[in-house]
Amino acid sequence: MAKVITMGEIMLRLSTPGYQRFIQSDSFDVCYGGGEANVAVSLSNYGHNAYFVTKVPNNPIGDCAIAALRKYNVNCNYIARGGERLGIYFLETGASMRASNVVYDRAHASIAEADPSDFDFDAIFEGADWFHFTGITPAISDKAAILTEEALKAAKRKNITVSVDLNFRKKLWSSEKAQRIMTNLMQYVDVCIGNEEDAEKVLGFKPGKTDVTSGELELAGYQDIFEQMVKKFNFKYVVSSLRESFSASDNGWSACIYDGKKFYHSKKYNIRIVDRVGGGDSFAGGLIAGLLDGKSMEDALEFAVAASALKHTIPGDFNLVSKAEVEALVGGDASGRVQR
Amino acid sequence: MAKVITMGEIMLRLSTPGYQRFIQSDSFDVCYGGGEANVAVSLSNYGHNAYFVTKVPNNPIGDCAIAALRKYNVNCNYIARGGERLGIYFLETGASMRASNVVYDRAHASIAEADPSDFDFDAIFEGADWFHFTGITPAISDKAAILTEEALKAAKRKNITVSVDLNFRKKLWSSEKAQRIMTNLMQYVDVCIGNEEDAEKVLGFKPGKTDVTSGELELAGYQDIFEQMVKKFNFKYVVSSLRESFSASDNGWSACIYDGKKFYHSKKYNIRIVDRVGGGDSFAGGLIAGLLDGKSMEDALEFAVAASALKHTIPGDFNLVSKAEVEALVGGDASGRVQR
Amino acid sequence: MAKVITMGEIMLRLSTPGYQRFIQSDSFDVCYGGGEANVAVSLSNYGHNAYFVTKVPNNPIGDCAIAALRKYNVNCNYIARGGERLGIYFLETGASMRASNVVYDRAHASIAEADPSDFDFDAIFEGADWFHFTGITPAISDKAAILTEEALKAAKRKNITVSVDLNFRKKLWSSEKAQRIMTNLMQYVDVCIGNEEDAEKVLGFKPGKTDVTSGELELAGYQDIFEQMVKKFNFKYVVSSLRESFSASDNGWSACIYDGKKFYHSKKYNIRIVDRVGGGDSFAGGLIAGLLDGKSMEDALEFAVAASALKHTIPGDFNLVSKAEVEALVGGDASGRVQR
Amino acid sequence: MAKVITMGEIMLRLSTPGYQRFIQSDSFDVCYGGGEANVAVSLSNYGHNAYFVTKVPNNPIGDCAIAALRKYNVNCNYIARGGERLGIYFLETGASMRASNVVYDRAHASIAEADPSDFDFDAIFEGADWFHFTGITPAISDKAAILTEEALKAAKRKNITVSVDLNFRKKLWSSEKAQRIMTNLMQYVDVCIGNEEDAEKVLGFKPGKTDVTSGELELAGYQDIFEQMVKKFNFKYVVSSLRESFSASDNGWSACIYDGKKFYHSKKYNIRIVDRVGGGDSFAGGLIAGLLDGKSMEDALEFAVAASALKHTIPGDFNLVSKAEVEALVGGDASGRVQR
Amino acid sequence: MAKVITMGEIMLRLSTPGYQRFIQSDSFDVCYGGGEANVAVSLSNYGHNAYFVTKVPNNPIGDCAIAALRKYNVNCNYIARGGERLGIYFLETGASMRASNVVYDRAHASIAEADPSDFDFDAIFEGADWFHFTGITPAISDKAAILTEEALKAAKRKNITVSVDLNFRKKLWSSEKAQRIMTNLMQYVDVCIGNEEDAEKVLGFKPGKTDVTSGELELAGYQDIFEQMVKKFNFKYVVSSLRESFSASDNGWSACIYDGKKFYHSKKYNIRIVDRVGGGDSFAGGLIAGLLDGKSMEDALEFAVAASALKHTIPGDFNLVSKAEVEALVGGDASGRVQR
Amino acid sequence: MAKVITMGEIMLRLSTPGYQRFIQSDSFDVCYGGGEANVAVSLSNYGHNAYFVTKVPNNPIGDCAIAALRKYNVNCNYIARGGERLGIYFLETGASMRASNVVYDRAHASIAEADPSDFDFDAIFEGADWFHFTGITPAISDKAAILTEEALKAAKRKNITVSVDLNFRKKLWSSEKAQRIMTNLMQYVDVCIGNEEDAEKVLGFKPGKTDVTSGELELAGYQDIFEQMVKKFNFKYVVSSLRESFSASDNGWSACIYDGKKFYHSKKYNIRIVDRVGGGDSFAGGLIAGLLDGKSMEDALEFAVAASALKHTIPGDFNLVSKAEVEALVGGDASGRVQR
Repeated sequence: MAKVITMGEIMLRLSTPGYQRFIQSDSFDVCYGGGEANVAVSLSNYGHNAYFVTKVPNNPIGDCAIAALRKYNVNCNYIARGGERLGIYFLETGASMRASNVVYDRAHASIAEADPSDFDFDAIFEGADWFHFTGITPAISDKAAILTEEALKAAKRKNITVSVDLNFRKKLWSSEKAQRIMTNLMQYVDVCIGNEEDAEKVLGFKPGKTDVTSGELELAGYQDIFEQMVKKFNFKYVVSSLRESFSASDNGWSACIYDGKKFYHSKKYNIRIVDRVGGGDSFAGGLIAGLLDGKSMEDALEFAVAASALKHTIPGDFNLVSKAEVEALVGGDASGRVQR
Repeated sequence: MAKVITMGEIMLRLSTPGYQRFIQSDSFDVCYGGGEANVAVSLSNYGHNAYFVTKVPNNPIGDCAIAALRKYNVNCNYIARGGERLGIYFLETGASMRASNVVYDRAHASIAEADPSDFDFDAIFEGADWFHFTGITPAISDKAAILTEEALKAAKRKNITVSVDLNFRKKLWSSEKAQRIMTNLMQYVDVCIGNEEDAEKVLGFKPGKTDVTSGELELAGYQDIFEQMVKKFNFKYVVSSLRESFSASDNGWSACIYDGKKFYHSKKYNIRIVDRVGGGDSFAGGLIAGLLDGKSMEDALEFAVAASALKHTIPGDFNLVSKAEVEALVGGDASGRVQR
Repeated sequence: MAKVITMGEIMLRLSTPGYQRFIQSDSFDVCYGGGEANVAVSLSNYGHNAYFVTKVPNNPIGDCAIAALRKYNVNCNYIARGGERLGIYFLETGASMRASNVVYDRAHASIAEADPSDFDFDAIFEGADWFHFTGITPAISDKAAILTEEALKAAKRKNITVSVDLNFRKKLWSSEKAQRIMTNLMQYVDVCIGNEEDAEKVLGFKPGKTDVTSGELELAGYQDIFEQMVKKFNFKYVVSSLRESFSASDNGWSACIYDGKKFYHSKKYNIRIVDRVGGGDSFAGGLIAGLLDGKSMEDALEFAVAASALKHTIPGDFNLVSKAEVEALVGGDASGRVQR
Repeated sequence: MAKVITMGEIMLRLSTPGYQRFIQSDSFDVCYGGGEANVAVSLSNYGHNAYFVTKVPNNPIGDCAIAALRKYNVNCNYIARGGERLGIYFLETGASMRASNVVYDRAHASIAEADPSDFDFDAIFEGADWFHFTGITPAISDKAAILTEEALKAAKRKNITVSVDLNFRKKLWSSEKAQRIMTNLMQYVDVCIGNEEDAEKVLGFKPGKTDVTSGELELAGYQDIFEQMVKKFNFKYVVSSLRESFSASDNGWSACIYDGKKFYHSKKYNIRIVDRVGGGDSFAGGLIAGLLDGKSMEDALEFAVAASALKHTIPGDFNLVSKAEVEALVGGDASGRVQR
Repeated sequence: MAKVITMGEIMLRLSTPGYQRFIQSDSFDVCYGGGEANVAVSLSNYGHNAYFVTKVPNNPIGDCAIAALRKYNVNCNYIARGGERLGIYFLETGASMRASNVVYDRAHASIAEADPSDFDFDAIFEGADWFHFTGITPAISDKAAILTEEALKAAKRKNITVSVDLNFRKKLWSSEKAQRIMTNLMQYVDVCIGNEEDAEKVLGFKPGKTDVTSGELELAGYQDIFEQMVKKFNFKYVVSSLRESFSASDNGWSACIYDGKKFYHSKKYNIRIVDRVGGGDSFAGGLIAGLLDGKSMEDALEFAVAASALKHTIPGDFNLVSKAEVEALVGGDASGRVQR
Repeated sequence: MAKVITMGEIMLRLSTPGYQRFIQSDSFDVCYGGGEANVAVSLSNYGHNAYFVTKVPNNPIGDCAIAALRKYNVNCNYIARGGERLGIYFLETGASMRASNVVYDRAHASIAEADPSDFDFDAIFEGADWFHFTGITPAISDKAAILTEEALKAAKRKNITVSVDLNFRKKLWSSEKAQRIMTNLMQYVDVCIGNEEDAEKVLGFKPGKTDVTSGELELAGYQDIFEQMVKKFNFKYVVSSLRESFSASDNGWSACIYDGKKFYHSKKYNIRIVDRVGGGDSFAGGLIAGLLDGKSMEDALEFAVAASALKHTIPGDFNLVSKAEVEALVGGDASGRVQR
């Protein structure tokens, strides 16, 4: 049971029931989530001692976000309270050729305006084994970018393994700004997760010929980019999930990993999608768990892919599966047969 | 922004939630819709000035029908109030090999017993650009058939383009009666929408060898019938959507059009169905919008097919998509990827 | 209209809405069902005079179970009241590679502790045409095993046709115990329903090479086992449904039957699953109805397969379809087209 | 356990959830009910062999109405199938000074157009102990008025006790027509239930000074009218519930009875209302049960008042209480304490 | 049918179902509302030509707010699009001694940052009869205060009657700032609505001895303050609703008005509360309608009080009642009896 | 922030939505609760370090119970896993004169069959300040009674303050057995909570003339019994809540306390009930918090009464209020006014 720190934003998610469009809905399903919080929940579900670090407003909506994490045994002792508001995102779940639609209302969130003094990073990282963050946090505000680097410095002072999920968000910042900020942060990173688009937009690596819309994948292009990334940033691992978007209802799902020597492509799953939000986060959570548990690079990747395939069948941001359930899928039973 | 008039019946739709059968449901989802009303909503969503003409009872259920249209900015100023009741249809959404089940309870509806004196057609058509009706309206009652012809005469007095969706409904009238009434009305029509079955049952054209149940389509048969139709009625365009019913959950969807010279078959979509009711209406709405916007015959058809493919992913009768969303699909992105 | 007796357990089923996992659900959908009760409902829906025999507690939850059966016109006059509790099962509906999850809480149910003196079997079987039970009933307790044999003896005293659905449940008993009890009960059975796994675990017949997880089926293996079964127990018919579990969302579904002379494999359906619980029971119900109605072995099997394919599209344990709906599917229309 | 026949209309009831107005509701709660059907359910719940006689359409909505009755063990064997439609009523539940709002859509219902030849009254009344009808049935159509008299004649041929609930419905007929039809039918009636307004509008008895809107009651006026009624029609009992409408949320509720000799006023309950529809029917059901069970006039009335007070706390048309629950309230415990 | 202009903020309202607290709710009921928008809906429901002027973001949530208004026939043609976000408020409905809880998340809303150049006030007020605003609008931001005065100047240039609802919101501004801004705006106002607390906090009038928490009212204090207000600002009418807060479930509700000569106190209603949000707005809407319809001061006040009493029984911000329904209550029938 | 230990059963609660009876409900609302768990949640909400000790099955339903506690920050580290099942109770919420109906299905629960060896009581009570249990735990089984005494001994070894809520449950044991077991356990108790009925049934004290059904209270009788109790068991405090059951919808609520010298009766609240289950537990939770926080006996009692009055307005077993909210009510504002 490792102590794992994740830091970032947790948002109120408001989604329309069924496949309703926003304009026809008179209720929203409520859950809470965000890239790093989702990773924390995954790690807690796999038995680790997961901490989520953020700042949420000192009002009932902030209380709700914390309760949602505590329910899954995520340690919230380092969450700061205060600031203006909890970020919100609105979600319309797509189907077939109609994509899911996300409307962000996250500006002015407490975490976007948080100060390093809100957190005692030395205490937070004391005894920790791993620190995970994503490219979303430095994107939400200049203050959050500074906060992220402070956390990274503290983590490195304590020699903690650091992973990042690049997660380019074009609605939050430009590729230029992303590269300026993120390239600097890569010095602290050991494990880098991100697909070709992220690699290009966030770190400036030239993409191969993969056309992310067409649903075709070019593994060769990935290997090429991964080699460049390791060369430049000396990552221990570079990893990417590989999504083939046949439609909003059906996706192909696999992943690849590179450790500077070997490039490995996982088994591929064809997924009938229930909720794809948080799919990438569940992949990161599975990968970190696999590596923390001492699995080989290949086995950790297969665990991560299976875990995140399962996430696509579960409503909400969080991946509510146990280690045993993931391992059963890795072991080969994707038949969906009922046990009784 | 064109002024478009549609006239027909709007009904209360009562559908079981999820895939429940009627007998197991203790609540019904409520919406309002009908062939021509659905077209009006589509046109309003694309930015046109859409009017829906009907008669609804002077009670709260009639108020609800009007409010449902107003919500989507359909102009209801010409809706007459009075009569006995709003027609109802009950809907059980099918899945896989179980077809959706529609139970009509529409007899004695206010519009079925409306009188031409309920409407001031000269005012209604003043400044209008287009009039659309379907073969359902003359089918609901003899009075409604007379009313339809009165409207058509008024439209033609003002030189307004007229479109019809033949829409044969065997539960409302026989093929013989349909041919007797509808053949006469075709003199007013410029754009005729209808599949092979409609062409045969409503207008008496001999079908080709298409077996609508088998899910196979014979484009050659369509072209043959379209040529006969243009020859006999001098339509500007003859159009049909082409549905391949693999199951209640999966359909193929495309369309063809003929302008007396050229026969064009659109791109085909494979649809995972959420709600197929109103699919044909959304096709008509897309086609009318495309033609009103000055698109070429081919582009208008592609717009209509994409629009109606999207409809199949949206619950309710109305096609709640914007012009931009339809055009994005026409432009080629059917991958269902989330934008963020 | 035949008088058909079924006997067994009816349980309260508590299922999470949509695809929620247990831990995220704050409401459960409620229905009632169980192997033999589900068969009774099917037979009542096809117009037979179906009786369900069980014991339920004398409290409001017991009342609910009876009301659920009465709603579908199942005769409940022979249901005993008393005992401790109604068995419960919790259900999480799976999707894609995530299997449905069933948690049983059925120990100490009233029927598990019922006594033969709770039932007047001579009255129950008076004038009856058919008796159906499953391998679940003798598995739930030793008392229930005794009760089952008492019922079988009474049925045989009146020369009633008896069918069994072997239904091995590894959570209820071991294969060894199943064989010990069930082999003895086979002397009363005319029609035996069960797949290869059941045949092996319940009756000890060596399986062929079918790997039930892989989704591949070997008809030859089935024929071989069926021949052994008829030889040993002199069944009139041996029957099995054949499920190919591609995933929790998509299954192939067919069946085979053997009457000592001829082996027949039905048409196969590819099913998009809404709710697979009760699929096997609906198959048994369809088969019994087909045979009672005097259909040929082949026609009865096709009726059973079509009936149970439809069940997979209906939420809840019960197969809420009419004979006419099943026959329409047998007749070939699986297109899911709306009739209107 | 007496055999009790009730005859009348059963309708689909569509009500808005919570306290929503029609215009803001996108789902309707579904149940089935009607004056005489509600009485049948009450009697079945008290252990009697209750039959409901009506005609419902031969479609799934008609099936639903029958299933709703069967669930509560009402015998539906004499229900005719056919005709055009099931009557519907829409319900908005009021609160405080906003009254509940009922919109009827019941014209052209199957029972309104049923023919005496649809029913074998001699078989229906064979062995019956009681026949109950209401003033609603003859009001729904001239054919239904004839049908009612045919049933009454058949009941009297077999010397069956007959009760009526006068139930004036001003939306169905005028007071003049009601008096013309109903005065004639009173010759068949033994037990007459109806308040002052009914007595005046349906039978022409001059009201006392009771102002039904003010919520004040004048028992003296009731006694006076009851004496006139017994004198004219020789009723065995005349009975009325007494409602004090403080608001849509709070009512006072009691009743009075007269047997030609003694006038008795029951205990009064102050009710916090959940659903007042069917309150009068539950009173009639309680009274009939009390008299059938051989209670004294006073005890039967107290049973009826307590039964119907409880109905006001239960959603839907049916009074889902047992005899034991009613008797506990009659016995004096209205404290609402939980037993555990 | 008068043209009435209202201007202000419309917010997304997210409320917990039933009486759930925020922390236990996994869905929120969705509606849209705000002080002035609520008044616009009331006026539209009473048959007036109501315009709502605001600015909402150019995203689907903004579309939803507009659709919510259009549904009730409010003219949205002058609504500007753009800016950052739609304001949100979260609502937990209280009961008994637990007060409803409102959490505002309205900072940075589009209307708070709107510019006078977003609106063509001359066009907006062309032909208008009445302009209504509330003290909330100038409170939300300095820009909104400027915008409000621009609108008032334009209204006065066209000699339009102006009403204000003072509506002090201590979470939005201090009493000092409110007095500084609002005192200036009073020069444009003809009809001033506000209770004692508003009069003190917004305009600086010394309160009488009314203790708003105790639920006791001192009419004498009101009259005294009203006289001061008319003296200072020359209002045509000063009006206040009078709420006695017995608990979150039960309130007393009346109102008083003063025209410089006569002080009138209305009838009082005791309300069982369903949803009290928007109660004050529905009072303003009723008063404006009454005055526009030419009622006497007393009759207009009684109409306003009855209208707003009804609002308390309707979920959501909007008062969904017709003029006929309000007048029925004014006429004296508060008995809640069903009409049928 | 004190460390508080509570030990007992947590159950799955299944309640019908709205005011539905069991037989009409096709979904159950799900929550988790139980006497001592409810106290733990209260104490956690007031800022204490609350531990709940129990045993739950090692299945997903057991996981849910733990997650429900974790959500409210109750420490679950000492919960044992294993055994057969989680106890269940079914709840129908009453209204007016219809009482809430509880159906228990709690036999064979894991905690009922737990062994002292499942718990390390020395670790559990290390550093603890308070231990609370109820009379339900020893009542559920003989093993649980032994377990309770083991825990009490361990608590006393560490000199921890012990409180009990007598909570007589006649469905679990007889008064005789209760007295035999509980009288012995009183030697460990410092604070005894229980009403007159509990005092008589559990401890054998002769009741005064209070008739718990009538809703009348006799404080004198309480004082008399309290004096006897302190004399016999040397309790530091004896306490009782006082419920006046006017109906299932309206209760009076107050409490009294005695410390051997002074008898104090609190303020009384009239409550409009949303959910009364857990009312007594919230009273115990409030009292313990008050005493732990060093309040005077009188102030602690007022805090407890206000806290539990609020509980009656909140759905579910848990009292989801903060210390600040309780203190605001103690401070006198029961007006239910919205703050904004």
